[in-house]
Amino acid sequence: MAHIRVNPDSVGIRSLFEFRPESAAPLLQLAETLLRSENSLTRGERELIASYVSHLNECNFCELSHSCFAGLELDENWDLVDATLENPESAPISDKLKALLQLASLVRISGKAVTAKAIERAKLAGASEVEIHDTVLIAAAFCMFNRYVDGLGASSPASRGDYIQAAREIVTRGYLRPSG
Amino acid sequence: MAHIRVNPDSVGIRSLFEFRPESAAPLLQLAETLLRSENSLTRGERELIASYVSHLNECNFCELSHSCFAGLELDENWDLVDATLENPESAPISDKLKALLQLASLVRISGKAVTAKAIERAKLAGASEVEIHDTVLIAAAFCMFNRYVDGLGASSPASRGDYIQAAREIVTRGYLRPSG
Repeated sequence: MAHIRVNPDSVGIRSLFEFRPESAAPLLQLAETLLRSENSLTRGERELIASYVSHLNECNFCELSHSCFAGLELDENWDLVDATLENPESAPISDKLKALLQLASLVRISGKAVTAKAIERAKLAGASEVEIHDTVLIAAAFCMFNRYVDGLGASSPASRGDYIQAAREIVTRGYLRPSG
Repeated sequence: MAHIRVNPDSVGIRSLFEFRPESAAPLLQLAETLLRSENSLTRGERELIASYVSHLNECNFCELSHSCFAGLELDENWDLVDATLENPESAPISDKLKALLQLASLVRISGKAVTAKAIERAKLAGASEVEIHDTVLIAAAFCMFNRYVDGLGASSPASRGDYIQAAREIVTRGYLRPSG
């Protein structure tokens, strides 16, 4: 049960957005900008970074919802999503994305955990400075979203199957449009 | 030196905002909403939460800048700011703010570290549900801002004295208005 009185019919971060629309607006705009706006990283790649950080932070709602978004953006290649969450280094993804996921895993620990070597690895694998910037910010943003959701005890669906319909709507309409 | 080529004449997070204005817009709107918009928590109290989390995360730029904002919002009571950063429990602040700072320190560790007891302490000390929500989100947001700044190796002024003029402008004009 959530630590504050949210609408019990709403799930996860959506229940917090309804509770406090003032802060929901910039948070939704941030998610839309980072994960869906024009970018040389695909939406699928960005959602993989978001779900991997959420997985490492053990935030069930964010891992489940963003792994749904990632799978839907990646032609429903759920094996690829699962392999990436399990171990990016052995997953069937590009060397660039492996390097960016390693960078994200360091940001998750602390900004100070990022090493020159991890940055160099990403650059050698072909990541641009904007892609490095965006990876650091996506990882940092999910360190916020994960803490927001779990810090207030927001609910989570039990499985991807329970969330897939809501995920399809969000992937189609974006984060900014209310569903329904 | 920063991990990406930012303007060397810009400092801290401002250099990142210049590098990537697309993400700067929602981040600045979030800071303005959380820290400065109408709220039953004063701007000084909210800046203390921001600077305390940044202090615990050892993010020099965010601790220094937000402790400047806190001090300026609190009639330049720098002793109170320093005592709070050092140990909120013995600082000359309200029991409610002590409870909210403890809550923020748990969010900093992980959303899952928040206990029913910490929420109960805040409620018993008079915190409203909105104040509890906003404290969790401010703490979570600074877990993002701290990682963003340090993860990209952004610069920091050496001392509060070096930052106080910029801080006065921001306290006067808000986060959304570019200085100068």
